[in-house]
Amino acid sequence: MDDGAEGCGAIIDEALARGKAQREAFGALEYVRLSDPFRGLSRGTARFGGDIVPGYPPIGRVLNLETGLRHHFEAPFHVEEKVDGYNVRIFRHRGEGLALSRGGFVCPFTTDRLPDLIDPALFDIEPDLIVCAEVAGPGNPYLEGHPPGIDDDVVLFVFDLMRMGRPGFIPVEARYETCRRHGLPTVPAHGRFRPDQPSVLRAVLDGLDARGVEGVVLKEESNRQKRAKYVTPASVIQDISVMADGLMELPPEYFTNRLLRLALILEESPELDREGLRERLGAAFLDPLLGAVRGYREKHKVAHPFRCRFRGRENAERFMEHLGRASRGTIHARGFALEREDDGYWVLTFERIFPRTSGLLANFLSGGQVYD
Amino acid sequence: MDDGAEGCGAIIDEALARGKAQREAFGALEYVRLSDPFRGLSRGTARFGGDIVPGYPPIGRVLNLETGLRHHFEAPFHVEEKVDGYNVRIFRHRGEGLALSRGGFVCPFTTDRLPDLIDPALFDIEPDLIVCAEVAGPGNPYLEGHPPGIDDDVVLFVFDLMRMGRPGFIPVEARYETCRRHGLPTVPAHGRFRPDQPSVLRAVLDGLDARGVEGVVLKEESNRQKRAKYVTPASVIQDISVMADGLMELPPEYFTNRLLRLALILEESPELDREGLRERLGAAFLDPLLGAVRGYREKHKVAHPFRCRFRGRENAERFMEHLGRASRGTIHARGFALEREDDGYWVLTFERIFPRTSGLLANFLSGGQVYD
Repeated sequence: MDDGAEGCGAIIDEALARGKAQREAFGALEYVRLSDPFRGLSRGTARFGGDIVPGYPPIGRVLNLETGLRHHFEAPFHVEEKVDGYNVRIFRHRGEGLALSRGGFVCPFTTDRLPDLIDPALFDIEPDLIVCAEVAGPGNPYLEGHPPGIDDDVVLFVFDLMRMGRPGFIPVEARYETCRRHGLPTVPAHGRFRPDQPSVLRAVLDGLDARGVEGVVLKEESNRQKRAKYVTPASVIQDISVMADGLMELPPEYFTNRLLRLALILEESPELDREGLRERLGAAFLDPLLGAVRGYREKHKVAHPFRCRFRGRENAERFMEHLGRASRGTIHARGFALEREDDGYWVLTFERIFPRTSGLLANFLSGGQVYD
Repeated sequence: MDDGAEGCGAIIDEALARGKAQREAFGALEYVRLSDPFRGLSRGTARFGGDIVPGYPPIGRVLNLETGLRHHFEAPFHVEEKVDGYNVRIFRHRGEGLALSRGGFVCPFTTDRLPDLIDPALFDIEPDLIVCAEVAGPGNPYLEGHPPGIDDDVVLFVFDLMRMGRPGFIPVEARYETCRRHGLPTVPAHGRFRPDQPSVLRAVLDGLDARGVEGVVLKEESNRQKRAKYVTPASVIQDISVMADGLMELPPEYFTNRLLRLALILEESPELDREGLRERLGAAFLDPLLGAVRGYREKHKVAHPFRCRFRGRENAERFMEHLGRASRGTIHARGFALEREDDGYWVLTFERIFPRTSGLLANFLSGGQVYD
């Protein structure tokens, strides 16, 4: 281990003493995770014995490219596709591949599926590599939405590489080279721009929006590794559409932030104000709610179904335990069922229940009066 | 004074002692208002010397006609148009006409404009009458929206009559007769229905929705005077449209309740799911926000302008003081200007400022980064 890891280790000890880090377990494997940012280490930093996996730092969103690029970037930046999935860090510890969630928990689903997502031989050659990636697709157990073009199960897209015990990322060009060398699947890259080129970037976004891509992450080519993200109108409408029937369950900021985002994007890029956008926005709010009301008449509940595949039964069982920690608002998972398929995979199905919406509809559909 | 008023008087004394009523003043006129419901008296009940003006009780909303009518109504009910304005109670006290807000404050605007809204001779003939009415129009100082067809200033629509000191309403048919006799302007009436006639009522709503009317209030023909309200899709879209740039200022329930309402209405009455509704809904959310962003570039603030006319300068000044008490969310009034017009009226202009939205746009348009 190098000095960086020793320094990080001392900080994690202090975080433990001050309640900013917690001891966790994944089966027999014990580890520590930072539940808050602490002394320069990101939330989600985790320690497995002597191995320290730095947290993935949050990336700030800009809402105006013209001023945002000028304000935050001092050097050319690379533009990479933002994929609508969940963030994991993958590494090897004592011969075992593990995947951490953003919060620093071992994710039983991703860890279980690692052999399907990434070639483990990578870690024979690069034992201290940490692969930062988005896992996306309709078979993911966390999110309702997924990128266009993924029809089933999950796919992995690498967007950063780190080294064990060293916060900070491998520089962009070196990462591209490492990913190429090891055949790693990566997020699509859309070129290198200067901060005075917002209109060129807007043209890229126009193409991404038309394809339904979520947005971009901008990564400065410099030691300070400045980053920013920016999304498309298509992503706003998609996000609203997949969760509008959870309008009464999620923090209202989920919806209000996205609407304000949409207005800011369109003000700067009127070319993204495509024909039919208002109709799609109205439908994104209304149709899921209308579906929830109609569905309630038959099923007496409002819920989203999930279906995900595991290689091992034990990991599916660990995942069920894990899920309680990944709750969003008042939404919670219920109705777990685990079945083995012919191909040997275990298929876990469950529902995310929307209890407030279910209760409101029960009252209103039975004629209840409300004083609002 | 009759027994009713004496009974109410004792309750108001007790409410004062328990902090449920407050002493207020309008110029030299002192009065007491119930700031909370108390012992059967509604919030907004007010006492002027020996005169007691009962509060206007809240009317519960139903969201499904089929079950709602059956559940809440035991006898035929009258259907009256719900007008998009603010609720006042008008009466005479010691020779002076006064108008109370829903909360029981003397409203300086409505009180000032009474001679324009209602013939004061009414109270010579009916001194203990309390006229419950909606004041609506683009010249109202409280609300952004107003009903279709009112092009300027304000109009009054009577929807109930009470007697001084006696909670409860004059029965519907008797009210129609009294309003006719005195030539009072009333809310449009749309007939009398039985609780087993939801589909006939739906047909009425279809016509109202097409005209952009807010909705209906149902008033049972019985001693218990059961009431309920029900709105149109047009009103949901109108409400969202007039306040979407206040999305970050108002309680989120303003928007979420209306969206759920819309879904419930359309589920029961698919005929109200008119062509272009989703586009209008999307535009109702997006266009005011887009306007706010564009306007911010010029004016460096997000605000709604108000313009209302007063007969007397003193009342305009009292209104400015009063306005602080009528604030909604974080929105507040500023930039008051008072000018006399050729017709002798005083024109008060002011703006309702949206401070959170203004702050967010200042940050985002100057390139600020947000970690959300």
